[in-house]
Amino acid sequence: MAKPNYIEDFQRWKESFKYSYPVTVRFSETDAFGHLNNTVSFVYFEQARINFFKEIGLAEEWFSRKGKTIPVTADLQCDYLHQIYFDEELRIFVKVGKIGNTSVDLHYMIQNKKGEICITGRGRMVQISQETGKPLSWSEQSKKRLEKSM
Amino acid sequence: MAKPNYIEDFQRWKESFKYSYPVTVRFSETDAFGHLNNTVSFVYFEQARINFFKEIGLAEEWFSRKGKTIPVTADLQCDYLHQIYFDEELRIFVKVGKIGNTSVDLHYMIQNKKGEICITGRGRMVQISQETGKPLSWSEQSKKRLEKSM
Amino acid sequence: MAKPNYIEDFQRWKESFKYSYPVTVRFSETDAFGHLNNTVSFVYFEQARINFFKEIGLAEEWFSRKGKTIPVTADLQCDYLHQIYFDEELRIFVKVGKIGNTSVDLHYMIQNKKGEICITGRGRMVQISQETGKPLSWSEQSKKRLEKSM
Amino acid sequence: MAKPNYIEDFQRWKESFKYSYPVTVRFSETDAFGHLNNTVSFVYFEQARINFFKEIGLAEEWFSRKGKTIPVTADLQCDYLHQIYFDEELRIFVKVGKIGNTSVDLHYMIQNKKGEICITGRGRMVQISQETGKPLSWSEQSKKRLEKSM
Repeated sequence: MAKPNYIEDFQRWKESFKYSYPVTVRFSETDAFGHLNNTVSFVYFEQARINFFKEIGLAEEWFSRKGKTIPVTADLQCDYLHQIYFDEELRIFVKVGKIGNTSVDLHYMIQNKKGEICITGRGRMVQISQETGKPLSWSEQSKKRLEKSM
Repeated sequence: MAKPNYIEDFQRWKESFKYSYPVTVRFSETDAFGHLNNTVSFVYFEQARINFFKEIGLAEEWFSRKGKTIPVTADLQCDYLHQIYFDEELRIFVKVGKIGNTSVDLHYMIQNKKGEICITGRGRMVQISQETGKPLSWSEQSKKRLEKSM
Repeated sequence: MAKPNYIEDFQRWKESFKYSYPVTVRFSETDAFGHLNNTVSFVYFEQARINFFKEIGLAEEWFSRKGKTIPVTADLQCDYLHQIYFDEELRIFVKVGKIGNTSVDLHYMIQNKKGEICITGRGRMVQISQETGKPLSWSEQSKKRLEKSM
Repeated sequence: MAKPNYIEDFQRWKESFKYSYPVTVRFSETDAFGHLNNTVSFVYFEQARINFFKEIGLAEEWFSRKGKTIPVTADLQCDYLHQIYFDEELRIFVKVGKIGNTSVDLHYMIQNKKGEICITGRGRMVQISQETGKPLSWSEQSKKRLEKSM
């Protein structure tokens, strides 16, 4: 298995995560091959990043129904290392990889109960205006919160 | 298998459907037991009823982004008669069962390629105001369109 | 709202649940109307009943990969009382309604944090043989476990 | 928007697709931001590649229930260029990017009705043995079929 292009030193990368979110695999998330369907990792990524954003104080405006900005996904990558099965207890790790003017690069790591890394990933989120659909720069406060989480 | 309470005469019920919508079972819709996960029939029902509403001219306001009314689900029932597997080509039949002042009772029937009825169902949709969240009576036109479809 | 046909006395029904399972609404489970998509309640029902079966000691054979019997859904009903939104913390209650020879009737109740009942439901599960696809009677032990939970 | 690392010349890349699969966006696939939820593109990718594999004659063994090999996802990438909304009619294009000994790199392109490219992507599938879980080399026939599709 080739190392994903978003990881330089795997050991250091792995140890740099602070935030994680617990998920137990649902039966409806498996498929007829008997394991977690490949599309579900992105559902876990989304839920973990929203909770991460809540944790560091960024989600409030986005998910209040009067918010003027929303986060949209610019790209996503996912590498599958170990099969995952029904009822496994996973931890979905999220961290900030890089902060742009209007966007943020997030990294993801999914670990099973034995401590094996089953999935790694990354993806860029962009903050856009609900009205214009165009990217909006981070406020100073948001930028600080993203930085502080690293 | 007991007859569902929304069907009086099965043969007549079956023959009274006019509208149907084709669906092929996706792999991500199966589960580790190897068949269609039970939750997916409601995804098929939803898609079929929206297409049915479009067909009879009711969906326009609901799904335009400026619409002031939306349809919400009041209740749903589903009876599973035959297992369904990956890649099966199904037809999702929909028809109006009964028309209320602000709501409509829809019936559903899912048939496989051999003509076997795999799933039957029904459910009531209510038209509500986006603003108040309260039920709104059908317009004369909408009522006529629902009646005409029967 | 008419009382669902599976509830006689709502207050007594509500108080008879002992088991519940916590769920927080995921963003991917909402739809463009801004609330929980109607199809997701069945995902919650499934996850809650599997956890309920685990709790009372019935799930072991079904979900081990060597099991000879599996539970299948015979029918499902769902009544929607209150809208549910992103990030709400819900409790999915499950209880045994009635025990048959090869099947069990389960009741469901979804409550939000304010204690409002948002969704009620019921459905029959049948234990079938993986090999023949035919219903199999409960073992004495399984029957006792189902009874004890009531 | 930076060019994804799997595309050298966008115009040539775009024109090199031959196979496509039609999808209409389901309501349950939207989210509370009003557009297609980001996780659904992978559902479309999966369905499109399975149909592509069927088209070129590779899917037969994998999806027969007696098959000894199955395809698993090694990695996935997705770039989001244009928002997608409910009811849009899309074409999901798939093509072989590169053929390995036991794996194949697939490219994806999602186009809306106006011809705009909304999503691009790629991912590697590996053929593994159901029994051992280990990668298995392509048969000569499979390799030829993959090559012929390019």
